[in-house]
Amino acid sequence: MSYPEYILTLSCLDQRGIVHRVSGFLADHGCNIIDSAQFGDAQSQLFFMRVHFSSEDVAVAEEGLRAEFAALADTMQMQWQLHDAYKKPRLMLMVSKIGHCLNDLLFRYKSGLLPVEISAIVSNHTDFYQLAASYNIPFHHLPLAAGASKEAKQAQEAKVLDIVEANNIDLVVLARYMQILSPAMCTALTGRAINIHHSFLPSFKGAKPYYQAHERGVKLIGATAHFVTGDLDEGPIIEQDVARVDHAMEPDTLTAIGRDVECVVLARAVKWFVEHRILLNGHKTVVFK
Amino acid sequence: MSYPEYILTLSCLDQRGIVHRVSGFLADHGCNIIDSAQFGDAQSQLFFMRVHFSSEDVAVAEEGLRAEFAALADTMQMQWQLHDAYKKPRLMLMVSKIGHCLNDLLFRYKSGLLPVEISAIVSNHTDFYQLAASYNIPFHHLPLAAGASKEAKQAQEAKVLDIVEANNIDLVVLARYMQILSPAMCTALTGRAINIHHSFLPSFKGAKPYYQAHERGVKLIGATAHFVTGDLDEGPIIEQDVARVDHAMEPDTLTAIGRDVECVVLARAVKWFVEHRILLNGHKTVVFK
Amino acid sequence: MSYPEYILTLSCLDQRGIVHRVSGFLADHGCNIIDSAQFGDAQSQLFFMRVHFSSEDVAVAEEGLRAEFAALADTMQMQWQLHDAYKKPRLMLMVSKIGHCLNDLLFRYKSGLLPVEISAIVSNHTDFYQLAASYNIPFHHLPLAAGASKEAKQAQEAKVLDIVEANNIDLVVLARYMQILSPAMCTALTGRAINIHHSFLPSFKGAKPYYQAHERGVKLIGATAHFVTGDLDEGPIIEQDVARVDHAMEPDTLTAIGRDVECVVLARAVKWFVEHRILLNGHKTVVFK
Amino acid sequence: MSYPEYILTLSCLDQRGIVHRVSGFLADHGCNIIDSAQFGDAQSQLFFMRVHFSSEDVAVAEEGLRAEFAALADTMQMQWQLHDAYKKPRLMLMVSKIGHCLNDLLFRYKSGLLPVEISAIVSNHTDFYQLAASYNIPFHHLPLAAGASKEAKQAQEAKVLDIVEANNIDLVVLARYMQILSPAMCTALTGRAINIHHSFLPSFKGAKPYYQAHERGVKLIGATAHFVTGDLDEGPIIEQDVARVDHAMEPDTLTAIGRDVECVVLARAVKWFVEHRILLNGHKTVVFK
Repeated sequence: MSYPEYILTLSCLDQRGIVHRVSGFLADHGCNIIDSAQFGDAQSQLFFMRVHFSSEDVAVAEEGLRAEFAALADTMQMQWQLHDAYKKPRLMLMVSKIGHCLNDLLFRYKSGLLPVEISAIVSNHTDFYQLAASYNIPFHHLPLAAGASKEAKQAQEAKVLDIVEANNIDLVVLARYMQILSPAMCTALTGRAINIHHSFLPSFKGAKPYYQAHERGVKLIGATAHFVTGDLDEGPIIEQDVARVDHAMEPDTLTAIGRDVECVVLARAVKWFVEHRILLNGHKTVVFK
Repeated sequence: MSYPEYILTLSCLDQRGIVHRVSGFLADHGCNIIDSAQFGDAQSQLFFMRVHFSSEDVAVAEEGLRAEFAALADTMQMQWQLHDAYKKPRLMLMVSKIGHCLNDLLFRYKSGLLPVEISAIVSNHTDFYQLAASYNIPFHHLPLAAGASKEAKQAQEAKVLDIVEANNIDLVVLARYMQILSPAMCTALTGRAINIHHSFLPSFKGAKPYYQAHERGVKLIGATAHFVTGDLDEGPIIEQDVARVDHAMEPDTLTAIGRDVECVVLARAVKWFVEHRILLNGHKTVVFK
Repeated sequence: MSYPEYILTLSCLDQRGIVHRVSGFLADHGCNIIDSAQFGDAQSQLFFMRVHFSSEDVAVAEEGLRAEFAALADTMQMQWQLHDAYKKPRLMLMVSKIGHCLNDLLFRYKSGLLPVEISAIVSNHTDFYQLAASYNIPFHHLPLAAGASKEAKQAQEAKVLDIVEANNIDLVVLARYMQILSPAMCTALTGRAINIHHSFLPSFKGAKPYYQAHERGVKLIGATAHFVTGDLDEGPIIEQDVARVDHAMEPDTLTAIGRDVECVVLARAVKWFVEHRILLNGHKTVVFK
Repeated sequence: MSYPEYILTLSCLDQRGIVHRVSGFLADHGCNIIDSAQFGDAQSQLFFMRVHFSSEDVAVAEEGLRAEFAALADTMQMQWQLHDAYKKPRLMLMVSKIGHCLNDLLFRYKSGLLPVEISAIVSNHTDFYQLAASYNIPFHHLPLAAGASKEAKQAQEAKVLDIVEANNIDLVVLARYMQILSPAMCTALTGRAINIHHSFLPSFKGAKPYYQAHERGVKLIGATAHFVTGDLDEGPIIEQDVARVDHAMEPDTLTAIGRDVECVVLARAVKWFVEHRILLNGHKTVVFK
């Protein structure tokens, strides 16, 4: 028999004794630390911690643990979350007409490399209806005409949020979803929506980054996974990577090379999220790899 | 006995038969192609070529070759250069108070990894006077007070250009020289001055890029070697590379990690320049590696 | 109207005038060089060349070009191939029970990133029957029991070769096909079978390389795409790449990280093959990227 | 006024409560954790920890801390070390005729990037006498003729060890020292000698790895920093990195490219050692970056 396992993430003002009090709490409740990581940000004076532990005392239940930790957390004014390590987070994937990231995430999911439930795929196009079907995942076609009115966009986004709510979605992944989310939508999804941008931000924000990269003559191109915020392409960066290119490559080639980078960068970000490794630190992230 | 070797670089409007005519010219003049590379830019409609060849007919001298190629080049309106492959280009290195790139280039030079003559080191500070002395290279201290007048700057730059001229300098390397060159100076050095910028351009232009990178929370930092132009940090990019960083690193650590990237990026750019591998294509470069 | 395009690859003993004679032949036959690359190997004294050209004279047909080039090639004892650049090579993919490379290649193919026909998928298992079906590609289940007799293996391989022949296959891709091919099979597929090995060869040959890597405590793991030869894991290397790992990662994690590397390394090798960029140089490869 | 800071490293059999007891000890002694990292190895059942802390209670002195922690460590059968974080480790550098790593380490040291004392440079040649002099570091020429007798080698190594002892050396760095150390010498320096091997181990052990790499036709070359053990090129790996190469590069070019990799790999390993980030785990390392 194996014990229940939990992942605790927390942040609070840096102060003496945090690690000691948290580890003491766990020891007192029959928990064994499997993995633990901390970080104190000298600039923001915030302290961040992630602890993966097993609960080895049958007399201790999740609710009890949660309630008692809340008391400790209050005394130190912590932001915290306690996750059942065996519970698969629920994902919704959004895509438009370019599907390599979608296909990549679906295969990782099916192979068991990504321990999640994918509850819904949403698209403003129908290109990937059959791909969704081959994985037996509900596909929601929520079109949005070019130059749609504000009301039309609002209505479409309301439907997206309905699906998020109806499916208890933990994470929305914009896997090359080429619509700009409204500020209200961004707010509604704060901290639980990840986008892949096809450039090495902050270079080449906005549309057609591979064309911009070609125009500028850079020697490496990249991709950036970041949390979605109302500030377009400015959300907290989770992961980035690059690939080498040269003068002989047209924008089409850059685009093809970039796709491989986008896939791995987004997949890493999603994996870290579902393993509860990413904490927000203002407009930056702490990633406990 | 080994034959004289030359490196021919050329560019012209793309048209049928360029390779054939150049290779025919060389065959007719008793030359053997050792290495050859071409590139046609679909956008600018320009064709670029670099040919490394040996001249195996004793009756053919460099001046003859040069004069006769000029005639061919005229018919195709080529920009071209013919370099003696055994002649070491003459370099001037410029530095301020941060010397890792200087030290790196000097050691490569001394080890024979960089086939150049280093004829002068110029600095607005004296920090590296002894390092220059240990390599027995003339060190020119040309100070420039903070907030110096336009006239003072002009006078200092005139002295720099005097050294360039007096030493027949082929390439000026700004190895962390922290003064902005005047437009006149940039013009005077067009195509023969390389700068190392300590960011992955076009991200984080200007001063203190590692602080900007830290502030933005990027996950990779980089460096860019580019030709100096009047448009600050916008010159044609020659080479770039990056290194991975994480949330726990302060700007100081980014700076330290970045130094290693700066060294290799600048060293590659300088090596390619002295091997005549870099051709200008508008505000971009063609690099025949 | 666009012109027919061809890719010519050749190798022969290095000698003066090869480029000139080839470019002359093309000019004489109304062909325009789009892209050309050469390499002379000082060690083997062999010269390699790849020329991509368009045939702009309607009076010149492929057979004529081919017959006349054969005459030139004979005088220089060239090994050569002339490929219609618009003709998609025909691929057969082989896989066992681990399907990330298969899935990756299939999606690239469907997205138009890999200009090939995939004519058959062969497996000794049935795990990917449905994946094949979703792409509408014939799936051949050719099982081979553990410890099968030499005769059984021979019979299975004969069926594989039948499929290769029946479909005019240009390239067999072992996309994690976990059976060792017999020497006869290797010979039959010489120069047209690529394997992906899940280590950075020559490290960790044989089975379970990620376990070997974990045991040795290396800090990077890799993957290698190579031509299949009778000498297991010793075939000419086409492409390699690596990813960073650390002490905290179990073999399972190395395996997961390695998969991403395997996908891109194999995809690059396949792409270069179908673009006729890979030439054999003894037990090494020349790759004109 | 700033507080004294220490770095505690420890390993012991994994058991419940280690983090709690260590953090409790520190809290009880007025110490504040600045940075902490742990790792439990499922295979060896060993637990590793590194804690960087400040001692903020003036009543607590280093000896007291040390004595009292020894008591705790005993109860858990820990291997442990407590280092004054402000005390610079003492290094001895060894080199033969190839000096890029030596030059690189010296410049990092002089620039303040490597917080160490370099107390001695030892070489079996005199090539770098002047470089040592320019940094004002004692240079010991301890020649060893090719094919020297066992006794001669023993005598030379005895002198090396004398210098180690006389200078209280914490770390011996073999910065391309091309002599195989005797088993006795390896034993004497266990855990405090780092070598840079110019290949991506375990590939291409032994001499001339770049020639082996060229012969095999690999597409990446690398370097490995490892602890020196009696088992040549088999010591625990600390760090590795690679660089891309291609078919056109001769062994000389691989060697030149490899040098840059060697420099950064060795510099990282040395930096991590002097920051007490490397713990031994059998024939592997734990590196708390």
